[in-house]
Amino acid sequence: MNAAVGVPQPSAQALVPFVSVAEMMAIVHRVGLEVALGELAARIEADFKRWQVFDKTPRVASHSPIGVIELMPTSDGERYAFKYVNGHPANTRTGLQTVTAFGVLAQVETGYPLMFAEMTVLTALRTAASSAMVAKHLAPKGAKVLALIGNGAQAEFQALAMKAVVGIDTVRLYDVDAAATEKCARNLAGTGLTVQTCASAEEAALGAQIITTCTADKRNATVLHDNMIGDGVHINAIGGDCPGKTELAPAILNRAETFVEFEPQTRVEGEIQQMAPEFPVTEFWRVINGEVAGRVSDKQITLFDGVGFAVEDFTALNWLYSHVDGSGAMLDVIADPDDPRDLYGMVMRAKP
Amino acid sequence: MNAAVGVPQPSAQALVPFVSVAEMMAIVHRVGLEVALGELAARIEADFKRWQVFDKTPRVASHSPIGVIELMPTSDGERYAFKYVNGHPANTRTGLQTVTAFGVLAQVETGYPLMFAEMTVLTALRTAASSAMVAKHLAPKGAKVLALIGNGAQAEFQALAMKAVVGIDTVRLYDVDAAATEKCARNLAGTGLTVQTCASAEEAALGAQIITTCTADKRNATVLHDNMIGDGVHINAIGGDCPGKTELAPAILNRAETFVEFEPQTRVEGEIQQMAPEFPVTEFWRVINGEVAGRVSDKQITLFDGVGFAVEDFTALNWLYSHVDGSGAMLDVIADPDDPRDLYGMVMRAKP
Repeated sequence: MNAAVGVPQPSAQALVPFVSVAEMMAIVHRVGLEVALGELAARIEADFKRWQVFDKTPRVASHSPIGVIELMPTSDGERYAFKYVNGHPANTRTGLQTVTAFGVLAQVETGYPLMFAEMTVLTALRTAASSAMVAKHLAPKGAKVLALIGNGAQAEFQALAMKAVVGIDTVRLYDVDAAATEKCARNLAGTGLTVQTCASAEEAALGAQIITTCTADKRNATVLHDNMIGDGVHINAIGGDCPGKTELAPAILNRAETFVEFEPQTRVEGEIQQMAPEFPVTEFWRVINGEVAGRVSDKQITLFDGVGFAVEDFTALNWLYSHVDGSGAMLDVIADPDDPRDLYGMVMRAKP
Repeated sequence: MNAAVGVPQPSAQALVPFVSVAEMMAIVHRVGLEVALGELAARIEADFKRWQVFDKTPRVASHSPIGVIELMPTSDGERYAFKYVNGHPANTRTGLQTVTAFGVLAQVETGYPLMFAEMTVLTALRTAASSAMVAKHLAPKGAKVLALIGNGAQAEFQALAMKAVVGIDTVRLYDVDAAATEKCARNLAGTGLTVQTCASAEEAALGAQIITTCTADKRNATVLHDNMIGDGVHINAIGGDCPGKTELAPAILNRAETFVEFEPQTRVEGEIQQMAPEFPVTEFWRVINGEVAGRVSDKQITLFDGVGFAVEDFTALNWLYSHVDGSGAMLDVIADPDDPRDLYGMVMRAKP
């Protein structure tokens, strides 16, 4: 790109595939959204099964008074991935996104990047696929009805992943903002799901076997009260995902069996930040591994306190890389002098 | 990029400038290499002066048996930057670079990336500019002769930065590999420097007021012996920059006054990893700040134990961004739905 006439062109080694937002969306359509969500859920389950091979460092956060920028790296010894993600609630006032993300997949053997990718869309896919994979194991058998409380950017992906992976056929929608519910209902029309809009969270929860909370307010809110939760329900709480942001009444946590991704991170970011440090939780990979039982009775309330972990992004980037077919953009990002010691000569030979 | 016919084009908000290797080289030629090195040195000095505003987190390293991948983030409260850099000594056997790097500059206020950039060439520039900025303060007055021990990828940049910033007019070259010295001498011909090739490190050091060591071997080598170092010399030791990789005999450190970038990092990565934990060093920003004297006599031996720190990369990315003129490539990397809550709708409307 931008090579002046007569300047040597970058070698193949210098070029790294780049999945833009447009290409990400093209891949979703090429694969099919529900197929993609199913593939992702299967890959996330497989990576949870080998959880212990991953190098799990805490995310590296840079906080400012109005937001946070985080780097989330992990590696399985063969591949390395990181995600850059910001969180700036005031952004929407100026027409910007609260959260944007991009990431890089690299080869551990050489340290060379394999792919750069947008990750705003990809994160929505991996979050929905993770929720559905967990629900497949924890929701009561034959669950058909999903309550979706919070109908923002994640909602449709959550609904379709629960359809593709768990077999949900009905979604009951509620949001404090009726326009969000209307948008979500409109988007889900024609997907094969029966869509019911509700006037309250209580109404949405009625008859649902799975209740997903994915609200956006950054505060300790109570989206679900204790009296809304009947026996046997699976709660998929994904909106409480950073310090000071929770969605559930503590009484629910006391009744439920709580499952998390990576305990040290969830203690800080999840619903359990409201509870004592010794509040018992189970890392979900132990269920996948067969070490610990998941749901043990029809009456049990199960809770997935999902905050999003680097391993899921690693899985998502590897899934995406498997669908990159070489037709997309390439970035000339690796300096590749003919003689590794002659970086200066390479620069000088590029003189226009 | 790659937008199918009929698919909505990304908005301006979605696009982030990308400085490819080719554009990086074009910018170097547009600005002029020595002018660029001078600008960078001045900016690094200015950022060292306000050292305490920077959020200085240690680099986040992912080690494998054959290399390391690191993320180096920092922020001054207005802008945030990180560099991805790998170190894989065995890469050269398969025609790959030992070290490659890229980085991102972002806005703290919004968390949005401002620029993606190659950083292999940029790191060579910032390392040379940092060395020269430090030498301007620590080298004996009127220093004209530089010994360059190690004539690899960094060498020419080091020589030209010392010329542009310190006023060096003569370079004495030595490398264990004569072909590297020959390459370096050839590259420096016509730059205005008098170039002298030497048969040994001892010979190169003769009559030099500044001695730069930038060798590549990842081991505890002794590139400089104590008897090679006369009174009044400034040593710029930049090759000893990771655990297990040093270049100087400990006796030299005992005779010299040692200056470092960020002490906690240099204790692990620098020449001083050979010394006791209480070995006295001075963080160089204190000299720039006027808190601590730099060189205090003509006879003093000064040592800059440079390992490269995130603040220098931050400076370099900001310098680069000041030269991005909009003529380069733009990456469609930020998903920008018309309604922030309607990410799904954006994806669906992109259906080919």
